[in-house]
Amino acid sequence: MTNIAICAPATPITRDHARALEELVAAEFPGTNVTFHEQCFARQGHFAGDDLVRLTGLIDCANDPAFDAVWFAKGGYGSNRIAEAAVARMNEAARSKTYVGFSDCGYLLAALYRHGIGQCAHGSMPVSARSENGRKAVRRVLQWLNGDNSGLEPSLDGKIPAVAFNLITLAMISNTPLMPDLGGHVVMVEEVSEHLYSIDRLFFHLSGVLPRIAGLRLGAVTDIPENYVEFGQTEEEIARYWCDRAGVPYLGRAEIGHTSANKVVPFGLASPSRAA
Amino acid sequence: MTNIAICAPATPITRDHARALEELVAAEFPGTNVTFHEQCFARQGHFAGDDLVRLTGLIDCANDPAFDAVWFAKGGYGSNRIAEAAVARMNEAARSKTYVGFSDCGYLLAALYRHGIGQCAHGSMPVSARSENGRKAVRRVLQWLNGDNSGLEPSLDGKIPAVAFNLITLAMISNTPLMPDLGGHVVMVEEVSEHLYSIDRLFFHLSGVLPRIAGLRLGAVTDIPENYVEFGQTEEEIARYWCDRAGVPYLGRAEIGHTSANKVVPFGLASPSRAA
Repeated sequence: MTNIAICAPATPITRDHARALEELVAAEFPGTNVTFHEQCFARQGHFAGDDLVRLTGLIDCANDPAFDAVWFAKGGYGSNRIAEAAVARMNEAARSKTYVGFSDCGYLLAALYRHGIGQCAHGSMPVSARSENGRKAVRRVLQWLNGDNSGLEPSLDGKIPAVAFNLITLAMISNTPLMPDLGGHVVMVEEVSEHLYSIDRLFFHLSGVLPRIAGLRLGAVTDIPENYVEFGQTEEEIARYWCDRAGVPYLGRAEIGHTSANKVVPFGLASPSRAA
Repeated sequence: MTNIAICAPATPITRDHARALEELVAAEFPGTNVTFHEQCFARQGHFAGDDLVRLTGLIDCANDPAFDAVWFAKGGYGSNRIAEAAVARMNEAARSKTYVGFSDCGYLLAALYRHGIGQCAHGSMPVSARSENGRKAVRRVLQWLNGDNSGLEPSLDGKIPAVAFNLITLAMISNTPLMPDLGGHVVMVEEVSEHLYSIDRLFFHLSGVLPRIAGLRLGAVTDIPENYVEFGQTEEEIARYWCDRAGVPYLGRAEIGHTSANKVVPFGLASPSRAA
């Protein structure tokens, strides 16, 4: 059995989201159990419970030796507020687990990767299990957690370590106590619902603060709001410009993003899941 | 005479904007000349001309000994792209000038302050001269440039050095080659048109990367978009939370922001303008 614990370090999901994932798993992944922590359904203002409730939910899942993996239920905003405390409280059981999520949950992936805790992976989340397209993305994660690598991001070559982040999330992590050493890594970034001038501004920041990385890949940049004037460059031209200016190799596109095509990117050197 | 050169390092203004400022100056500041660089009206995509056009406009103004001050016409986005090159090209005449602007033009103020070039000040910009309320803010800058300190931010005490920035702008500057040493400074921040979760995220970043500052003051946080759920904390509660968490004294509100109440904050120790 692959036993997966699910918690919500940022914003809450509903019982309908949970049921949709449970039905998918029951129908297609007989060797897998998913267990939703009650904290997934808690609400306080923007968040899935206050900081202590979310922290406790995460630690309950991470520190329990009965689970092989921790899957973050949904992004939104908020995992940054508990990430430092979380890594400080993790036990030996937490260190042998796989952790999967993306978007706002990149704060946790960063902190875990920095501290060498478990195997992190960028991948879609349980919140997507209610739509047909979303289930395609969710299925890739479940397959990977069961040893099937068909849903891995195709540029991963097992030779150069990789990470994947939401662009704002990585900018906000940079130089904070959550920031892992990304020297020598291929860094993949994706973004959603940001103006192109904001994309340009974020690349400005990253080009000034990222250590020597092996290269950058640009994931999907979706739902760009219309501005009062055309920016004048596409998202790929922006990425190329800042890579050129920073002396970072631009390696092309990555199949990650806030879309159903979002692929799995294990942090570090791609490898079959430890949960398999 | 106080001779002020105006250029647009980010986005363009129109001839109507220029005329409105010229009329205000002619009517109320007989000892002041304002000279608009043609670059203010250039357009390329989002910007007031491409990077080289904007850089050249700024350097023409800064390096000309005929001018006492350089006033940035408008924010928007784009001064970050030319700030490093600008400070590298500035001559002795540039080093004895006063530079005024805010919002996106904070990238330039940061770079100038880091390199000890001239006297920087956070203040409203010529683009505001077309409305009655905007003229109140513009008048404060003209008064200050003529030696009248009545428009200074009232908490400035001449003993603790201060700076003022837009919140996103400061977050994007942090740890880049534009970042000045803000240790021991009172840092004032303001924001416009950002969700409260974004304000929280920016304070998370700054609390992790700012050096030991003397304290933080929160300016106006205006035009906050409605979100699908109440965030659960006000902007001032957010600022206090992150100050407490980082061990930074929260000093209260500052009279800066994207409003007509925006006051002048000379960087460093408040002093009468050098242009007076």
